Amino acid sequence: MKAHAQPRYVIGMDFGTDTCRILLVDADSGAEKAQAVSSYPRWAKGLYCSPAEARFRQHPLDYIEAMESAMEKLAAKAGAEALGFVRGIGVDTTGSTPCAVDASGRPLALLPEFAEDPDAMFVLWKDHTAIAEAEEINALARGWGGKDFTAFSGGSYSAEWFWAKALHVIRSNPRVAKAAASFLEHCDWMPALLTASPLEDVKRSRCAAGHKAMWHESFGGYPEAAFLERLHAALVPIARGMGKDTYTSDTVFGFLSAEWARRLGLKAGIPVAVGALDAHMGAAGSGAKPGVLVKVMGTSTCDMISAPIEPGQERTVAGICGQVDGSILPGLLGYEAGQSAFGDVYAWFKKLLLWPIESVLPKAEEIDSGVVAAVAEEMDASIMNALEKEAAKLPPGSAGLVALDWLNGRRTPDADQSLAGAIMGLRLGTTAPAIYRALIEATAFGTRAIVDRFEAEGVPVSSIVAIGGVARKSPLVVQIVSDVLGRPIDILGSDQSVALGAAMFASLAAGLHPDMGAAQAAMASAVERRVEPLPEATAAYEGLYRAYNRLGGFVEAETRRKA
Amino acid sequence: MKAHAQPRYVIGMDFGTDTCRILLVDADSGAEKAQAVSSYPRWAKGLYCSPAEARFRQHPLDYIEAMESAMEKLAAKAGAEALGFVRGIGVDTTGSTPCAVDASGRPLALLPEFAEDPDAMFVLWKDHTAIAEAEEINALARGWGGKDFTAFSGGSYSAEWFWAKALHVIRSNPRVAKAAASFLEHCDWMPALLTASPLEDVKRSRCAAGHKAMWHESFGGYPEAAFLERLHAALVPIARGMGKDTYTSDTVFGFLSAEWARRLGLKAGIPVAVGALDAHMGAAGSGAKPGVLVKVMGTSTCDMISAPIEPGQERTVAGICGQVDGSILPGLLGYEAGQSAFGDVYAWFKKLLLWPIESVLPKAEEIDSGVVAAVAEEMDASIMNALEKEAAKLPPGSAGLVALDWLNGRRTPDADQSLAGAIMGLRLGTTAPAIYRALIEATAFGTRAIVDRFEAEGVPVSSIVAIGGVARKSPLVVQIVSDVLGRPIDILGSDQSVALGAAMFASLAAGLHPDMGAAQAAMASAVERRVEPLPEATAAYEGLYRAYNRLGGFVEAETRRKA
Repeated sequence: MKAHAQPRYVIGMDFGTDTCRILLVDADSGAEKAQAVSSYPRWAKGLYCSPAEARFRQHPLDYIEAMESAMEKLAAKAGAEALGFVRGIGVDTTGSTPCAVDASGRPLALLPEFAEDPDAMFVLWKDHTAIAEAEEINALARGWGGKDFTAFSGGSYSAEWFWAKALHVIRSNPRVAKAAASFLEHCDWMPALLTASPLEDVKRSRCAAGHKAMWHESFGGYPEAAFLERLHAALVPIARGMGKDTYTSDTVFGFLSAEWARRLGLKAGIPVAVGALDAHMGAAGSGAKPGVLVKVMGTSTCDMISAPIEPGQERTVAGICGQVDGSILPGLLGYEAGQSAFGDVYAWFKKLLLWPIESVLPKAEEIDSGVVAAVAEEMDASIMNALEKEAAKLPPGSAGLVALDWLNGRRTPDADQSLAGAIMGLRLGTTAPAIYRALIEATAFGTRAIVDRFEAEGVPVSSIVAIGGVARKSPLVVQIVSDVLGRPIDILGSDQSVALGAAMFASLAAGLHPDMGAAQAAMASAVERRVEPLPEATAAYEGLYRAYNRLGGFVEAETRRKA
Repeated sequence: MKAHAQPRYVIGMDFGTDTCRILLVDADSGAEKAQAVSSYPRWAKGLYCSPAEARFRQHPLDYIEAMESAMEKLAAKAGAEALGFVRGIGVDTTGSTPCAVDASGRPLALLPEFAEDPDAMFVLWKDHTAIAEAEEINALARGWGGKDFTAFSGGSYSAEWFWAKALHVIRSNPRVAKAAASFLEHCDWMPALLTASPLEDVKRSRCAAGHKAMWHESFGGYPEAAFLERLHAALVPIARGMGKDTYTSDTVFGFLSAEWARRLGLKAGIPVAVGALDAHMGAAGSGAKPGVLVKVMGTSTCDMISAPIEPGQERTVAGICGQVDGSILPGLLGYEAGQSAFGDVYAWFKKLLLWPIESVLPKAEEIDSGVVAAVAEEMDASIMNALEKEAAKLPPGSAGLVALDWLNGRRTPDADQSLAGAIMGLRLGTTAPAIYRALIEATAFGTRAIVDRFEAEGVPVSSIVAIGGVARKSPLVVQIVSDVLGRPIDILGSDQSVALGAAMFASLAAGLHPDMGAAQAAMASAVERRVEPLPEATAAYEGLYRAYNRLGGFVEAETRRKA
């Protein structure tokens, strides 16, 4: 580590599904100086969403308010002086999370006339309102004579991605369609906001656009106008305004505006890196190298692995949702897979079990409302620990249960959002912890299906690093995933891998390190513990995994029958 | 109605799964004079049971204490004088619920040395500890050269029945095996107790022995010694002591002993009818006639229908669990089918949802134990109503869910206790009421499978009467069953059909009516309401029923694969 006259700090801003996390880190030592988290206030209240329809929208003010609140907390912890040493900002967000914007690049929901319109807000990654549009895009792509626009998406375009969502919003909301000059990914809008860049200067993220917006160098950029026109005429000018280029996050997007420097307590003019998706920056922050599968275990998962680019040809992996040059590490081919629901599966079960407390108890006349609130708070806080404790006592297979983890559809392998989850083996003696364990096992089987596919398609997986909230909070989940895979899993010492990855890219954009390898060497967290598979459990899971696959096959056949 | 100088009352005693109900009724008018219910105290505490292993045992003292307690309440309501007019007693119990007894016919658990041994207690109908023994019996029966001892059990002997349970107890508990002179069904022991009859004088119930203990006239009684010996030598003397004859409940078992006359406040010497199973007596009490399917909707169901006996030959119905001459109505062929779990499926879901309140909340240090008790009591009382209210708002198929009702195995059609339940179509937005509705629909599909099988095998179903706790307590369940069947369902005005049936048989044994038709004409309850199917729902359920059958086929194939 070279000695510098003054500390060289960078900031990583991580806009997750529920919160904005900001990490202040020393670019030379990797030492965490401070971190702060704030929730999205409207999202926390469930506004603009309808879980029954899988409609999940986020208001742009949520991002702004959470960012300012987290920066305030950060300043309080680190001191205003420390913020003066910040040399750059990196930003990651969820995605594909696009929003209709006006000609200035402003999300429509920031205009008074659209302030309460969910279609004028960010369409969150897990929103599934565009299933019909995704099917339409796939049908068109399959019959398209020229390029295969799904070639780099495993042959299947998802309802969770940019064009499906843009098409859905345009189709279903004429007012928004009329006002929309373009759509911006959340990870493109944050840097644009911070640098006060007009729409035409937005440097769109390679990580977000590659495959999710069907951008590929071999296509000459986004899909051709004739293809988009067949879907909807309005998509043609939108694509035209998006330009031909995309950028990796070692690139400077622009420089912090005077207004935002003041609002965030930072120096104006420091570089802001091109944005990228949270999972991908998390992989970089976790020390991703070729052959290392970085699994971000959160509400969903993102499973990322990089491989050298073979000159002249690009291997495509069947049924894996995305592969993009530089999406994870600049200069390497990034493969991205993932499970549409992971922690969300456990959260669903929690919500199911809390239904009596949340929906029935408040109506009980005999019970005081203060008691109801105390019980709800206590249960909310303790139920997952109680479930995990009891589930850990059960053997693999929870006494005959096999579950399917597709409660939010299936992303990888072979994306199909119309699939759903299942549980079989229910008996009168089946308990809540047994079902919980079966759900964990189902998510672990989903992980194995991805690893198996990578290897079957010639992308070797040499080791696995798990990051994300679930990886650190639930030893049982990590152990079961390790048992099911029959492979060790490394857990990092920091729970800030995603924000740290954003900070590493900030250091590259600011020129503090020459390349990601150097940034990782200086800043990456150490492996805290290695979880080893238990051989007896691994053996037991072999048969259960086959049962999981047969159940999956049955559910797929049933789903096709309905369609 | 003839005028009699004094009232002519009869008593029906109904020993259900959880309680003893006693009904005092006027044999001439059918008027209910009083009724009383008492719970089984040890059973209510969960003693001697292990739901996780499907082990359900009941202590004989539970029956005695609940009977005495209910009679005390009855006397308090009706007055001691009214009890003086009682002319006979009829008794029904659950079954097959056998117990090892000593040479005097006393259940072994009444002996001090066996007082706490579950194997010395009654093995409740829903106990599934004898699955291996049932498989062994079926395997032996299939290869047996001579008679087909499963011919009247739909080709499959169940783990819930007499010989499987006796064999299991003998195999697993040598102390009990040594002390057991015989086994008695609960419905045979109660009359034996009340009439102080020694073991050799027990008039075994045709209804309980027919098919469940493999008794059939064409076999010359119970299975031949060579068959039983192959299972276990100890079964041979047991069968020998059971004699060759069985009896219908219009027969007098014996006369009330002086001791029990005193303990119950009745006159000594009044006749006690031969016992029978609760469901069958309920069918009689519900006005069963040829072609009328009486469905007892309780924790499980029993679906009974009678048909004239064709002289010289008896039609056997494939996959229907029992057919016995006179099991329901004397002189008619009784067919008995049933679902191993019905209300128990809903109760399972209730228990699942209450897990946080029952298992987590009591451990919360912040919450006072009085509050925990109040919350648990309130939720226990209100959750089913709340679920039903919300589930009623949902359309057929609860937004894509299809469930399988085999949480306690499958009794009919095609008995297989090793099968289990399943739910498919789970999504992150799936709520507790949606799952509850899917479970109700699953039990309704199970009902349809039985009705379809009866008709396919040439036993026409002309109308359906529903009785039992669920039929009266849950309008939603009855409506969904009617919708799924596309047939009206009649609900009786009394919720005492089972005890009323026992009282009708008491009136026959006491010679107050010449035959069941006359007893029904005088005493039966009127139909209170007819539930009509909603045509749109019936149409929607057609496709869902096919999906249910496919899911069932998949689960069967998986179960066979494991076996």
